[in-house]
Amino acid sequence: MTQEYDVPRKEKTSRRRTARAASRSRDSYGERVTNDASVWSQPNTSTALLTDQYELTMLSAALGDGSADRRCSFEVFSRRLPAGRRYGVVAGIGRLLDALARFRFGEPELAVVSRFLNEQTVDWLRNYRFSGDIDGYREGELYFPGSPILSVRGTFAECVLLETLTLSILNHDSAIASAAARMVSASAGRPMIEMGSRRAHEESAVACSRAAYLAGFTATSNLEAVRRYGVPGAGTSAHAFTLLHNTPDGPDEAAAFRGQIAALGLGTTLLVDTYDITEGVKTAIAVAGPELGGVRLDSGDLGEWARQVRKQLDELGATETKIVVSGDLDEYSIAALRAEPVDTYGVGTALVTGSGAPTAGMVYKLVEVEGIPVAKRSADKASRGGTKAAVRFARPSGTVVEEVAYPMGNPVPESGRLIPRELLTPMIRGGERVAGLPTLTDSRDLVAKGLVSLPWEGLKLSHGDEAAIPTRFLS
Amino acid sequence: MTQEYDVPRKEKTSRRRTARAASRSRDSYGERVTNDASVWSQPNTSTALLTDQYELTMLSAALGDGSADRRCSFEVFSRRLPAGRRYGVVAGIGRLLDALARFRFGEPELAVVSRFLNEQTVDWLRNYRFSGDIDGYREGELYFPGSPILSVRGTFAECVLLETLTLSILNHDSAIASAAARMVSASAGRPMIEMGSRRAHEESAVACSRAAYLAGFTATSNLEAVRRYGVPGAGTSAHAFTLLHNTPDGPDEAAAFRGQIAALGLGTTLLVDTYDITEGVKTAIAVAGPELGGVRLDSGDLGEWARQVRKQLDELGATETKIVVSGDLDEYSIAALRAEPVDTYGVGTALVTGSGAPTAGMVYKLVEVEGIPVAKRSADKASRGGTKAAVRFARPSGTVVEEVAYPMGNPVPESGRLIPRELLTPMIRGGERVAGLPTLTDSRDLVAKGLVSLPWEGLKLSHGDEAAIPTRFLS
Repeated sequence: MTQEYDVPRKEKTSRRRTARAASRSRDSYGERVTNDASVWSQPNTSTALLTDQYELTMLSAALGDGSADRRCSFEVFSRRLPAGRRYGVVAGIGRLLDALARFRFGEPELAVVSRFLNEQTVDWLRNYRFSGDIDGYREGELYFPGSPILSVRGTFAECVLLETLTLSILNHDSAIASAAARMVSASAGRPMIEMGSRRAHEESAVACSRAAYLAGFTATSNLEAVRRYGVPGAGTSAHAFTLLHNTPDGPDEAAAFRGQIAALGLGTTLLVDTYDITEGVKTAIAVAGPELGGVRLDSGDLGEWARQVRKQLDELGATETKIVVSGDLDEYSIAALRAEPVDTYGVGTALVTGSGAPTAGMVYKLVEVEGIPVAKRSADKASRGGTKAAVRFARPSGTVVEEVAYPMGNPVPESGRLIPRELLTPMIRGGERVAGLPTLTDSRDLVAKGLVSLPWEGLKLSHGDEAAIPTRFLS
Repeated sequence: MTQEYDVPRKEKTSRRRTARAASRSRDSYGERVTNDASVWSQPNTSTALLTDQYELTMLSAALGDGSADRRCSFEVFSRRLPAGRRYGVVAGIGRLLDALARFRFGEPELAVVSRFLNEQTVDWLRNYRFSGDIDGYREGELYFPGSPILSVRGTFAECVLLETLTLSILNHDSAIASAAARMVSASAGRPMIEMGSRRAHEESAVACSRAAYLAGFTATSNLEAVRRYGVPGAGTSAHAFTLLHNTPDGPDEAAAFRGQIAALGLGTTLLVDTYDITEGVKTAIAVAGPELGGVRLDSGDLGEWARQVRKQLDELGATETKIVVSGDLDEYSIAALRAEPVDTYGVGTALVTGSGAPTAGMVYKLVEVEGIPVAKRSADKASRGGTKAAVRFARPSGTVVEEVAYPMGNPVPESGRLIPRELLTPMIRGGERVAGLPTLTDSRDLVAKGLVSLPWEGLKLSHGDEAAIPTRFLS
């Protein structure tokens, strides 16, 4: 995971400290990381209206002219990666399968659509449930331009309705996981806390925490993500707590630190940059002693301050006290801090906004009708017809070299002595979810394995528009 | 709203067509635009865990050391506007007030937080409800760097818990509304359809539709926004419907158009760029006749194609048929198309991603404790202490010239012959929502009025880092 940036040789204590920080995580906890299927906040809420109106007007037209029952195949793919990206991470599959199970039109939903649909269409929707098949890339799998990430097959009527919900979830979660994976890669194994909830829509924030954890983050500040998905939680204190301990004579940082330690123990992390960092560190150790768990820096030149604070802590005998940094970090600043004595990163805005690419740009296109490939020919948005499967080839060392998309049902293509791995797995058969789909933990492992399998150029943070591996399309 | 870009002199028919397009909106409907308070999807769902863990650990520390009951004042403000922006639009207030009413800790929420909180804190949360006061900028009000957008007052304990939820909602919705207002401004009064749901988290998409409507968009593709907020819906057909009408002999665009017209009537909009635009337009009019409502272009050079298609339609006698354009539009491309015969814009990705600024960057800071102003002094994140009110001054013509923030409770400052308008209004008193808060329609009107009130430089799309008007801070 660290091919591009050599991990600089640090003095032994620093290396030990980092490893320790990773294993302790005293400010976090995580009893369980669950399969998404078992925990969903609003299990009885319909998702059917998280849909664009045109899917329903197309349905009514198709029911009217007899084309609704044609056997169709839709495909989710991304025409290109965001600028400078070399891979994407598929995320949201678990959330999508849960949302699909709740894609039903009850009376409240029918009341809305009956304002613009005829009776025949409304009756059809009343009995709707998806009865087709879905195959897709596992959640946590890497993807490249043109990768056939999801294949949705059934009648036109039943498939066309799923476009918006499918894309909303996959585009959002994949954008976040793709950015998060680059940050994790840049962190060289140090713990990463996701703390961006305040910069995202309140429900998007929960999905961001999940996607970040999937991509390798250690913990989240978001309590609903803790509840819903079992992501480990983290968090201690903000500047407000220090400011609260104001007196008529002025600030009393020591009182704030004493209050926090009394409640959270010596293992807590004290925020030391409310007034003056050097004074803050001095006060922190004066109050807590050298057993203090950590200090957090949230402003200023983080690299410069990390060095100064490390020196100060060591001189005060607090050699085990870790340094947490936060404040507008992204993959580039994380990488730039790799040579500094930083133990843990807290990442907010850049994570939840996809670090410049807040949506993954996936589309949901009709590729086959009654067994015949179809494709639009629009100037800048042409598509490739036909239902596709895909295989990724690796050298015996494990490094991947090529992805090949080929007509689904054909034999897996061969590629000399390279080792093939088929990428699409069955997810829904006859409308029912298949057993044994990956848990969030499985997907997290898959991301980590995927990153290790990329050629080293694929992990570069520098600008460039080439995917880590090429994709070939067979017809 | 059009100070920067003079509306070019178009031939009379084009002007008439645009006005007609605005009034017809045959593919949309909108029976009611409701007050947010009355329609919420999950009225019984707790919002208490849409919160960062550190707010609860701070609470436990404050309960422990006796500082929890200190009278505090928190303020929401934005340190700066996104690069190149000259104003922001406050949005999300209605959603926030609804979410606050559901900020309660029931047993499922307590089960999560009791994993890391002591019994005293859990008991306190069991009885929690906000009992303080909130004042704020009306939803739809413009804001500038440092504007005291929201003032939250009460005990430390009851206020500190609301940080993340407040910021999540205001940062998201304000980012979208701020981008949307620039697009509306650039459109020079032509109808705008929001169609970005597929590029946003599925719940964020609903809030985006609401924010876009607030900022002046005409309609949305998102059916849940139609249901929840009464935003007018719009949508007819995608490429999939044309591709569906494939035959063993090849595409049959005419069959697709016939099917759509049979279901949706001659007033519908046909998508003509699946295969070849010129052929598509010819087929559309051959099937529908010159009474066809509209054609949509979703690819290629939209300006060039709009001109060609307008000419072709006019030659075919379809002089009333409108042209809808979509496909990666943002405020700049919308402005660039203003001289072209475009009747309606469909906007997706750029809208729901805030057109380069997906979050508004607002913060929630403690500014006063027991009547004494407090402020942090962090290097790049210093804050201004004290509870503030604000007033905006306008010339008798209505053009605003300055905003002044001053200590809340002081008399409104005077400014010669300029006309003052106070910006903060009471929203919550003693934990109860005050009556008569703006509806979504009121807020939409307020945005429109706010844009008209800006000096012409304030509506420029070109890059620049100056707010439309300066803000002065009195102490």
